[in-house]
Amino acid sequence: MTQNQAVKLENKNRKRTGIIDCDVHVSPFDNDEIKKYMKQPFRDAFRFWGRGIFDNPFTEVRPDAKPPTGGPIGSDPEFLREQLIDSYGTEHAILHPWIYADYYADPDLKAAICSAYNDWLNDTWLSKYNHDGVFKASIVISHQDPSLAVKEIERWAGHPHFVQVLADAGARAPFGQRHYWPIYEACQRHGLPFAYHPGSDGLGSNTPFTPGFPTHFIEWGTTLVCGFISHLVSLLTEGVFERYPGLKVVSLEGGSAWLPAILWRLDSHYKSFRFEVPWVKKLPSLYIRDHVRFGSQPLEKPDDDKHLLYFLEMMDAENIMMFTSDYPHYDTDHPREMFPRNIPEQMKNKILYENAREFYRF
Amino acid sequence: MTQNQAVKLENKNRKRTGIIDCDVHVSPFDNDEIKKYMKQPFRDAFRFWGRGIFDNPFTEVRPDAKPPTGGPIGSDPEFLREQLIDSYGTEHAILHPWIYADYYADPDLKAAICSAYNDWLNDTWLSKYNHDGVFKASIVISHQDPSLAVKEIERWAGHPHFVQVLADAGARAPFGQRHYWPIYEACQRHGLPFAYHPGSDGLGSNTPFTPGFPTHFIEWGTTLVCGFISHLVSLLTEGVFERYPGLKVVSLEGGSAWLPAILWRLDSHYKSFRFEVPWVKKLPSLYIRDHVRFGSQPLEKPDDDKHLLYFLEMMDAENIMMFTSDYPHYDTDHPREMFPRNIPEQMKNKILYENAREFYRF
Repeated sequence: MTQNQAVKLENKNRKRTGIIDCDVHVSPFDNDEIKKYMKQPFRDAFRFWGRGIFDNPFTEVRPDAKPPTGGPIGSDPEFLREQLIDSYGTEHAILHPWIYADYYADPDLKAAICSAYNDWLNDTWLSKYNHDGVFKASIVISHQDPSLAVKEIERWAGHPHFVQVLADAGARAPFGQRHYWPIYEACQRHGLPFAYHPGSDGLGSNTPFTPGFPTHFIEWGTTLVCGFISHLVSLLTEGVFERYPGLKVVSLEGGSAWLPAILWRLDSHYKSFRFEVPWVKKLPSLYIRDHVRFGSQPLEKPDDDKHLLYFLEMMDAENIMMFTSDYPHYDTDHPREMFPRNIPEQMKNKILYENAREFYRF
Repeated sequence: MTQNQAVKLENKNRKRTGIIDCDVHVSPFDNDEIKKYMKQPFRDAFRFWGRGIFDNPFTEVRPDAKPPTGGPIGSDPEFLREQLIDSYGTEHAILHPWIYADYYADPDLKAAICSAYNDWLNDTWLSKYNHDGVFKASIVISHQDPSLAVKEIERWAGHPHFVQVLADAGARAPFGQRHYWPIYEACQRHGLPFAYHPGSDGLGSNTPFTPGFPTHFIEWGTTLVCGFISHLVSLLTEGVFERYPGLKVVSLEGGSAWLPAILWRLDSHYKSFRFEVPWVKKLPSLYIRDHVRFGSQPLEKPDDDKHLLYFLEMMDAENIMMFTSDYPHYDTDHPREMFPRNIPEQMKNKILYENAREFYRF
């Protein structure tokens, strides 16, 4: 046995506990794997658009995550298990295909793409490659036609491995607005959290989240927090958590260092303008711990570890942050290297494991 | 002499030092005062639109600031001097008429409104009511037609009391984009800072700064930071401060507690994507101290003073924050009551006075 093989075996036998990774991206080997689940005319219409005006070869790929099969990153279960699950001892990974369904204009096409991805996930990563149940996944939906989204949720509710609903954060209206309420009703009914993740934010058929289009990916990637700020403030001010008291929301890959600033600001405005939103029964910030979780990646890191600890304390990370690696993207966060050395042990364990275990009832 | 009169006299004789207030709003008694500076057809076209979809009687007014003349708040110089300048001992107040010129679609109308307000300011607050030079003001411009904005800047450059250029933060494109560069060239040439302030952000003829329109004023007022985040990131990534090394920018009333989060995020993206923006010569955050200042109001306040001090430290408030009261709006910040007791004295003095004195060369 070579040293390399010995390390692999040791990793494989590592006790899987201490880490739940709430955002791992998987991909089919090629589009045909998805198309076979689609009916016409959608089968011929579908191709992978990505991010349109910002597509460039460097924005997503982590070169060392390319599998030996020659397929795209995140397409080889064996390789992903070895590189991510076994080497860290991850107990569960929540899988998200990276699709940008809401880039398209046609709500039927969007819904068909989502259905096909869910069928594919169900047949592959969630069954054939899931002998030990390590893989969980989100039911992907398009939010433009909530009635189709609800149908898709109903199709999978009760599945042992589909543990939440996932939407593209790209949208035409902030997520608190009435358009979306049927989706939240379905999520609450089935005990499924509603998660959102960047995708076609401000691109394709979505409204920009900045006053006019940004110019470069660096600008888009930095400012996409604006869409996330808007969605959260909308959910809070529209009273969604009073209307759906069982609803849980997960904000993925939209940053979180902005959270204290926004909540201070919103609470202050609430004191002056609550007459506008009488359905909001308490300071908006007080809804967060019961209803909202934030994925950790990309952990926004100052030069000074002290400032990172300030921020983790101010945002209540110990109670509302859940570890996400964003594997296999270029900016994967490593669960054992991302935190400063002097982070309190309990905070670290809750972020890496306990918060997700409790939230998803694993 | 009554006790009240004695207090007034004491205030009036108070040595004016220690406070420079960088955002004070003044108003004409009525629209006719402005219209008399306008030519047709604009004179008939002009009325005050405010914020359109969010107008309500409670969003702006501070009732105790209504002057005895019966005019609008901020319309009586005598009363404003008494309530704001004398009572705090303010050395200078930078005056901004609250206009929302960029709400309109027609760039000629917008420019005519701005010109008229500048004429009015020049004839009244900056001369007739300014025997002691306490009042300074911004040259208001519309940014939709930069050539007209440059003409307006040229009309006032060199004036002893117009000390900067002021734009509505509501826009159709983020402020780093090439459209705006002639304005920055003029600002640099005349040594005038370029300031922006909320107005018709995302309203009227401007693009929303959220993915779709917000529903209530509470939501608009909380999320308008998104436009400010977008403008700053755009200025930094488009390399405006390399192209115009003498340009200074002032972000007014758009919050600042978001700044550390956004700079951590932008610096991190810069490390991955600087190939997109080769004109950015150093970490984007390193441009802030030399080029950008933030108005303090509304100071986003957590419950815990400790967290406010964390944030002031992390944002480098001691060097980049300048006091603004936003008088006479409902959420005026009081220069002697806004800070926690244990704020370092030097930081407080720099925010209340030194930073602005140095920046504006008073």
